[in-house]
Amino acid sequence: MPRKAVQRPARKRLDREARRLQLLALGRAAFQSRAYDEVSVEELAEKAGISGGLFYHYFPTKRDLYLASIEQIAAELVNKLGVVTHIADSPRARATQGVEAYLAFVERQPAGFVALMRGGSDPEVASVLERVRVAILDEFLQGAPISKVLQSRPMARIAIRSWIGLVEAASLEWRTSRDVSRDSVRDLLVDSLFDMLGKVLAPKDALRYK
Amino acid sequence: MPRKAVQRPARKRLDREARRLQLLALGRAAFQSRAYDEVSVEELAEKAGISGGLFYHYFPTKRDLYLASIEQIAAELVNKLGVVTHIADSPRARATQGVEAYLAFVERQPAGFVALMRGGSDPEVASVLERVRVAILDEFLQGAPISKVLQSRPMARIAIRSWIGLVEAASLEWRTSRDVSRDSVRDLLVDSLFDMLGKVLAPKDALRYK
Repeated sequence: MPRKAVQRPARKRLDREARRLQLLALGRAAFQSRAYDEVSVEELAEKAGISGGLFYHYFPTKRDLYLASIEQIAAELVNKLGVVTHIADSPRARATQGVEAYLAFVERQPAGFVALMRGGSDPEVASVLERVRVAILDEFLQGAPISKVLQSRPMARIAIRSWIGLVEAASLEWRTSRDVSRDSVRDLLVDSLFDMLGKVLAPKDALRYK
Repeated sequence: MPRKAVQRPARKRLDREARRLQLLALGRAAFQSRAYDEVSVEELAEKAGISGGLFYHYFPTKRDLYLASIEQIAAELVNKLGVVTHIADSPRARATQGVEAYLAFVERQPAGFVALMRGGSDPEVASVLERVRVAILDEFLQGAPISKVLQSRPMARIAIRSWIGLVEAASLEWRTSRDVSRDSVRDLLVDSLFDMLGKVLAPKDALRYK
């Protein structure tokens, strides 16, 4: 929290970036705990001690704030995965480290996180999530000739995309119930990826993804 | 379409249920092609030739219309799956028929369908989708002792829930790209389900789900 200037009016004077981050944090917390329609700009502005008009100076619409919240969570997640996976490791080792980091990230988020990240019918949200999925794929499979395989083999692309849906659904269920260990979920997910790759890749490529 | 009454004012006089279904069809088409925020009640009321006030008589909020659209699609889907799966068949045969029917249903929907069905952060939408997922599971696995297994074995529950995420993501990718056959996607999905069940069930139960 910034220090309060003495003898200033109650409205805190934050510089532009700090104010934007404050509103983003308020928005993120709100969208993670309530439905989109139930969150109002007025309420967030009041919490930040600013006028609704000033709020719109930072985020022209509620949807912009929503998108920025998702972008922020996504950037944190992708950054986290980039730190843990090592290009020198085998595809299975990288996938294992990546899935473990993903689950650890999900575990630390508020309960509303996964619902938020699921997106919905908004094409811009879908586009943010799509970028996250591609970035995650890149992190998991970097250094492997997977991009060539994906281009040449539609079934491999469908398998890997589907697997990301599997990981997202598994995270949500696990995040909610918390009745199995992270390692068990991780192993189930990694095994499923390589089982599927074994079925959809040409035999010579499949050897690299056992 | 109902017949127009001769010499009536331009506003069509539909009975209550017919009007509700008309608004639902308009809303469903709109939500399937555009973002939630871009669809307005005023626009839908105008298309239906009624006032905004009358619209709210049928659907108190835009969100109610959105939820009703998802409920309608979900009911069609669950009904479709119930028709094709036969309780006398083996678990694998039922899953194969069910996945095939699911993919056939998705194939006939507008491109926006899967995005709509993905839900998002709205807890009521999530609750409708949850009912769909449970109904789908029931259709796929009915007659099998799966409900007992699910209760007693958290990893089996996570595997099956995750698999539904896999199916949803596969459908979206396949619906968008359309570059592989329905049968190939179906086989990949069914194989994945039984591969996962083989890993998470006790050996005696796994025998029933090969």
